[in-house]
Amino acid sequence: MATSDSAYRRLEPRFRRLLTLREAAAMLQWDAAALMPAGGAAARADQLATLKLVCHEALTDPAVGDLLDAAAGENDLDDWQRANLREMRRQWLHATAVPGDLVEAASLAASECEQIWRQARPASDFALVRPALQVVLDRTREVATAKAGRLGRSPYEALMDEYEPDATTAAIDRLFDGLAGFLPALIEQVLARQAAAPQPHEPAGPFPIELQREVGVRLMERIGFDFDHGRLDVSLHPFCGGTPDDVRITTRYDENDFRGALMGVLHETGHALYERGLPLAWRRQPVGDARGMAVHESQSLLMEMQACRSPEFTRYLAPVLREIFRTAGPQWGADNLYRLNTRVARGFIRVDADEVTYPAHVILRYRLERAMIDGDLVLADLPAAWNDGMKELLGIVPPDDRRGCLQDIHWYDGAFGYFPTYTLGAMTAAQLFAAAKDTDPRILPGLETGDFAPLLAWLRANVHGKGSLLSTAELVEQATGRPLDAGIFRRHLKTRYLGAG
Amino acid sequence: MATSDSAYRRLEPRFRRLLTLREAAAMLQWDAAALMPAGGAAARADQLATLKLVCHEALTDPAVGDLLDAAAGENDLDDWQRANLREMRRQWLHATAVPGDLVEAASLAASECEQIWRQARPASDFALVRPALQVVLDRTREVATAKAGRLGRSPYEALMDEYEPDATTAAIDRLFDGLAGFLPALIEQVLARQAAAPQPHEPAGPFPIELQREVGVRLMERIGFDFDHGRLDVSLHPFCGGTPDDVRITTRYDENDFRGALMGVLHETGHALYERGLPLAWRRQPVGDARGMAVHESQSLLMEMQACRSPEFTRYLAPVLREIFRTAGPQWGADNLYRLNTRVARGFIRVDADEVTYPAHVILRYRLERAMIDGDLVLADLPAAWNDGMKELLGIVPPDDRRGCLQDIHWYDGAFGYFPTYTLGAMTAAQLFAAAKDTDPRILPGLETGDFAPLLAWLRANVHGKGSLLSTAELVEQATGRPLDAGIFRRHLKTRYLGAG
Repeated sequence: MATSDSAYRRLEPRFRRLLTLREAAAMLQWDAAALMPAGGAAARADQLATLKLVCHEALTDPAVGDLLDAAAGENDLDDWQRANLREMRRQWLHATAVPGDLVEAASLAASECEQIWRQARPASDFALVRPALQVVLDRTREVATAKAGRLGRSPYEALMDEYEPDATTAAIDRLFDGLAGFLPALIEQVLARQAAAPQPHEPAGPFPIELQREVGVRLMERIGFDFDHGRLDVSLHPFCGGTPDDVRITTRYDENDFRGALMGVLHETGHALYERGLPLAWRRQPVGDARGMAVHESQSLLMEMQACRSPEFTRYLAPVLREIFRTAGPQWGADNLYRLNTRVARGFIRVDADEVTYPAHVILRYRLERAMIDGDLVLADLPAAWNDGMKELLGIVPPDDRRGCLQDIHWYDGAFGYFPTYTLGAMTAAQLFAAAKDTDPRILPGLETGDFAPLLAWLRANVHGKGSLLSTAELVEQATGRPLDAGIFRRHLKTRYLGAG
Repeated sequence: MATSDSAYRRLEPRFRRLLTLREAAAMLQWDAAALMPAGGAAARADQLATLKLVCHEALTDPAVGDLLDAAAGENDLDDWQRANLREMRRQWLHATAVPGDLVEAASLAASECEQIWRQARPASDFALVRPALQVVLDRTREVATAKAGRLGRSPYEALMDEYEPDATTAAIDRLFDGLAGFLPALIEQVLARQAAAPQPHEPAGPFPIELQREVGVRLMERIGFDFDHGRLDVSLHPFCGGTPDDVRITTRYDENDFRGALMGVLHETGHALYERGLPLAWRRQPVGDARGMAVHESQSLLMEMQACRSPEFTRYLAPVLREIFRTAGPQWGADNLYRLNTRVARGFIRVDADEVTYPAHVILRYRLERAMIDGDLVLADLPAAWNDGMKELLGIVPPDDRRGCLQDIHWYDGAFGYFPTYTLGAMTAAQLFAAAKDTDPRILPGLETGDFAPLLAWLRANVHGKGSLLSTAELVEQATGRPLDAGIFRRHLKTRYLGAG
């Protein structure tokens, strides 16, 4: 163990303060999305920018670099401390790699572009936003180049590192090329099989919002969400925010469709359990944080897609829905609900996609954004490249850019390198769930009675409680006995959607 | 105007950052009271403590003292800048007067004592909390002595200065002695008159909470609360929080008593209008903040007591209540509601007191806390001194300390010097409202039609928009043409409660 006056020990309180201030910012961001009146937006932006600046100054204080160098030579650190030091250095590298005026220019460019995008998207007018997007792309490439030098990675990898530490394009290419190789044919087969089977019946609404909320709360409690340390609220875009000790998830309700809000709640509950299960002993240290966005997304998708769209859970869900909505009929049977919840369709919009077609949307974006950062795709060619990719991967071509390259906020808000984490998360979810079921035979029967305790115990031990101790690759390998493997995801899809083992 | 490289100009961004961080803290405090699950309390306390520490470090940075000294010699400041500099120096004096370890010891003592008080109050056990309160008092006296030296005031005045800048015991003694001189006899007369008149009828509930909220929102909108820059929520203790651009008020509902929540909403709306009306050009500068707690309380009491318990407003209110509660009958007539809303009774509990007996509660606390700080009253004698004071000022003696010296959180939480602001606020409210009515003859008829625009315009021009430009004494004198005068409050009480002009 490090002695109390070691450089390492002197870093801990600095990062504790930093991460405590980030908790404050996280709560304010949640409030902005869930509650804040519109007129409060400008003041809130200032509050968040000031908190960010205070954090940036604390992290780039020259003393931090000196302490990190000194701590690197300390040999008495245990595994957690060493990992903590590694993550401290990662945060410091990201913060110090980019000059302050470039950080500000990039942030300003993103704010301005995002505003224009909000007009360009409904108007389906890519030309309107293209000049602003060019500025964002230029600044982002400068940031990427600056970070690449410090991190010893390619520019695109340096951008990914913020969301998914240590991600490499070599590994992602291998996984995504694997998916791209079998998905088009699989989608064809699934659609043909679906068309030949009886069509499921969509239960007719309206479904009062207070009853939809009651369903959500009931299931959250069964799954293990602790309402003494969290809340369920409403926002335009569902998300999981707050802090590990006060996890705030949101959903949105539609009186005519209870399934959207419900699946949103189950998805965010998966995120929430991860946050809540992070190692308490390392609260507010970098090693105590979530590993990265791929693992985070694996936790939401494991809950929503793997566990809660399973036939087992659907048999638990069906009578709960009938009870709370005070209804009955064949459309409320587990078989019909299962068919509804595993319906596959080719569509233009990523956020509406099912789990079979979703990876196609992500692979497209990954390839395009990487080409943009590498300088291999200019913005003038983006809409056509988008449509060509959709044709290749999904077999359909969007009729306009609103349903094409304008649909997602990410690029217009300066987020390049985030998209791959969605599908890395989906693959990780399949692999973790398969390993969990293999390890503990009570997990699957548990879902059928609404008993999530065995699943949650496995996740706590193998994922949540690890924080950032391991790399994502190590975490997956230790938890499942093998590296991340597109074949396991493929097997999951074939089992569920083609009835094949 | 100050030039851009002047010391004064270099202070502005430092204070802007400080006040922006305080806005963040204010939002987190609101959330803690209105929404936060209990399990989030420890993490939230850490977030707030860290923000406070960051602010304290920013304020006590040696550069701030140097800049304040340099700015004091700059002769090209306008009135607002000079006032801003004065308020910057006040904040700096308070922050630098007390050594860091004493600040921490005082804060810790208050936290510990408040916890014990939460057990001692329901048990009516003053002896249980006395040792902890002694520590709080000792630390508070040390703080007061340290501040007194820097501020050039007496120790008790130095404590008051945090809540009511520049308050002097000489001025408060004169005002409160004036009240204490006429109140006992006035209370006798009011009670005798009330007893001789027909008794008002309390409308019977239940009053559904959603309808009570509808009443509150309707009236807030009429009064001028801007829901694009604020919210109405629920908390255990009603308060006005948030920021000028996002004012969060709360109330609490009782299904059997709509008047409590309603009066709470009207009171907090008065606070909210003040915050919202602070000078936009000086947002996040000390001179742009509210003048002090006496003026703040004057704004809530002007709205609740002066305007909304007036016969004129009650004639507007009565049909609104009948419409929203879908009810009728003589108990819903304006005359009956007015009698209910101006009912006077001697009681033990300050927060339940009416506007006639309330000053007696405050004068008692002011005298006792001042004696404790001055060393003229030891804690062993506090319960008896409390009961003697109640007997003298109000003619009743509490049967136990729960309804006596244990009832208020203030001292047990380390807040000495706050109490006088309640009654200074009540007197200021009476004087401002009288002046407003004299200036604009549309104000009183406006209340009868729910048109608050003339009243609000007067308050914006004479109080809200002034921020901290003037001292409280100057503000009252400029707005009303004379210094604060207990005679005006007396006249208000006599007119309303004895029907005398």
